[in-house]
Amino acid sequence: MKSEIIAIGSEMLTPFRQDTNSLYLTEKLNELGVTVAFKTIVGDRRKDLINVIRTALGRADIVILMGGLGPTEDDLTREAVAEALSLTLRRDSAQVAALHARAAAWRMPMPQNNLKQADVLEGATLIPNPNGSAPGQWLDTTYSGYRKLVLLIPGPPNECRPLFDTECMPRLRAIMPPRSIAKRTLRAAMIPESQADKLLAPIYTPYTDVETTILAHAGDIQLTLLCSKADAGAAQQRVDELAGRMEEALEDWLYSSGAETSDSLEQIVLYYLGLRQATIAVAESCTGGMIAERITSVPGSSRSFLGGAVVYSNEMKTAFAGVSPNLIEEHGAVSEEVAKALAVGIRQRTGATMGLGVTGIAGPTGGTEDKPVGLVYIALSDPQKTEVVEKNFRGDRERVRQYATQQALDLVRRRLR
Amino acid sequence: MKSEIIAIGSEMLTPFRQDTNSLYLTEKLNELGVTVAFKTIVGDRRKDLINVIRTALGRADIVILMGGLGPTEDDLTREAVAEALSLTLRRDSAQVAALHARAAAWRMPMPQNNLKQADVLEGATLIPNPNGSAPGQWLDTTYSGYRKLVLLIPGPPNECRPLFDTECMPRLRAIMPPRSIAKRTLRAAMIPESQADKLLAPIYTPYTDVETTILAHAGDIQLTLLCSKADAGAAQQRVDELAGRMEEALEDWLYSSGAETSDSLEQIVLYYLGLRQATIAVAESCTGGMIAERITSVPGSSRSFLGGAVVYSNEMKTAFAGVSPNLIEEHGAVSEEVAKALAVGIRQRTGATMGLGVTGIAGPTGGTEDKPVGLVYIALSDPQKTEVVEKNFRGDRERVRQYATQQALDLVRRRLR
Repeated sequence: MKSEIIAIGSEMLTPFRQDTNSLYLTEKLNELGVTVAFKTIVGDRRKDLINVIRTALGRADIVILMGGLGPTEDDLTREAVAEALSLTLRRDSAQVAALHARAAAWRMPMPQNNLKQADVLEGATLIPNPNGSAPGQWLDTTYSGYRKLVLLIPGPPNECRPLFDTECMPRLRAIMPPRSIAKRTLRAAMIPESQADKLLAPIYTPYTDVETTILAHAGDIQLTLLCSKADAGAAQQRVDELAGRMEEALEDWLYSSGAETSDSLEQIVLYYLGLRQATIAVAESCTGGMIAERITSVPGSSRSFLGGAVVYSNEMKTAFAGVSPNLIEEHGAVSEEVAKALAVGIRQRTGATMGLGVTGIAGPTGGTEDKPVGLVYIALSDPQKTEVVEKNFRGDRERVRQYATQQALDLVRRRLR
Repeated sequence: MKSEIIAIGSEMLTPFRQDTNSLYLTEKLNELGVTVAFKTIVGDRRKDLINVIRTALGRADIVILMGGLGPTEDDLTREAVAEALSLTLRRDSAQVAALHARAAAWRMPMPQNNLKQADVLEGATLIPNPNGSAPGQWLDTTYSGYRKLVLLIPGPPNECRPLFDTECMPRLRAIMPPRSIAKRTLRAAMIPESQADKLLAPIYTPYTDVETTILAHAGDIQLTLLCSKADAGAAQQRVDELAGRMEEALEDWLYSSGAETSDSLEQIVLYYLGLRQATIAVAESCTGGMIAERITSVPGSSRSFLGGAVVYSNEMKTAFAGVSPNLIEEHGAVSEEVAKALAVGIRQRTGATMGLGVTGIAGPTGGTEDKPVGLVYIALSDPQKTEVVEKNFRGDRERVRQYATQQALDLVRRRLR
């Protein structure tokens, strides 16, 4: 079954706003074995809208229209579908009553125009929308002799997604051939993208029945394996087999592997810290709080994360992490020695089991021939030892900071593993 | 002139990846007075691709195809355009030589298949691509008796965007009626979205010749005003007039207003700190480093930002910001008093002109009836005074942290203004 998702709204044809609902719907549709073959974005012009609907009916079995169901003059989806399919619209009296009741409950006026939200396509059934005034519509119809399913759903994400989940998915499942989806997600840290490709492509390419997606971002690679089969066991066996081979190939770059979702690197670090009943503190220069921010984004992180110091100035390196001014004078603030002193110092100052110290040049200025932009030292100290890694990250300020943060968290993971 | 942007690639029909080039191209096209009327996303299937190209030729004057120009079997854009328009493809010998030279320079093998990147549509001119092996193509042709402009450009953002900018824009400008775009961007902090709408809609709605876009995110509102006219002065006069009225209505919520782009809140804060030759340090509990991270994301922030402490545990609040354990005991870690003590303490410890202290409950757990999730105290201390604000932010952990960060930066801005 082929589907087309149509996002309706002129704001999505500006440089500023993008349709994101379709990613959510695609995930749900794929679960049912429905492919998304086309996505279209169109504005609020009636003529354009009719053109887009007819085009979709000509090439997809399931056409999902998002948006344009509100009460304003720009909301033309109902009218456009009616015209594209030569159907009439009838005003549903129960829906009219519901709109009046809703307006009364909110103590809002009820302009005549609002009532268009009660217009129902001939042959369609209404889909309740608990989070908004405009219901969705489900139309099982024919176009040029072919059966077509046309869904009208509201555009705001907080209406679209729950409505699709709770109302559309069960109805779709009921009319689809039964099939099971098996899924696995693997994540790896700090493996160069090209190396991951070279390593993994020969492994997953022969698995033509498993859809493998690779997402890479700032030293983090996420692999999603999806297999859809009538037989649940067979689908599971295929993704497990492929996941096993990939896990082996990724060696210790791999940091998490799960069925539905997988843990982020900061979650894994906190998980290991919890297991060992260990705590951590960080002293960050060039990453400017990004490491602390990532760790504390995880609920419950306060159990293992004591805190951190953002030591931008040399004086702060001394005041908060006890780095000796002489050491900074001798080796420079961006040096192996200062990174180590930050890690050791923050551990001692806070009483944490582990101390992490980062110093580097994020750019765009501040680089020299000896110490170019992108040079970062990351040190990790625990009661056994203090180690430091030197990295040269390429890219702009944001990218250098992101890579340094990822590298620092990965260093902790490898020590705790 | 109406355009359609077509993004080609099966990965953009998965739940994981989205076309983002089109936002960039839309901004550029709008500058020329070209509207984007449709955006389509299609996979690598030849039949689907031809369908999409024919549909676009039937409804748009300018059709921009992104992607599918590489050397693999999935790269079918050239062939699909040739078939959709009944054109032949010829292999360009200069381009073949360039591909060989490129492979030699990179010491890469040159498989036969790669040569398809030298195939040129009948009547098209090649568009040089300095960042990749596949050149773009520019085709000025007719379809069903109408003049159509068809552009083939590579998909990778680092190839697509510079190529469009340096090669396509001058060519497009040469064939477009001359027109000027005037632009203004305003930004405001911590004004509730509904209030901004109510305040601004009556002001901008009558300006039908100015396109006003409002983007809101976590306490930050960005307004973009665009006016396109043949007469540059007239366009400028309209956006300036509208911007002036909006600035007045936004009162002191407004924090930046610029011609092309506008400064972020952290840039404004750093600008004011620089003007007053003042410095700042932060002590963050629930924001976990997010304030420091935002400030240090700005190049050169080290001139005014001394550093910060992420004081997650009570012990750290004492060790790094000198908050007395008795005070925490008496009022609780999340209290007006502790926020103040954090602000005063971090200022004294670091010698900064201003100290910022934040403590709150980001959730999802840790809330009580008295102190619910979302309760945040933000204190700002300078040599004159120490003030504290109490806020109840709604939403999940991430949202509470983002709002608290925005509120903290806005407090600094208001003090320095």
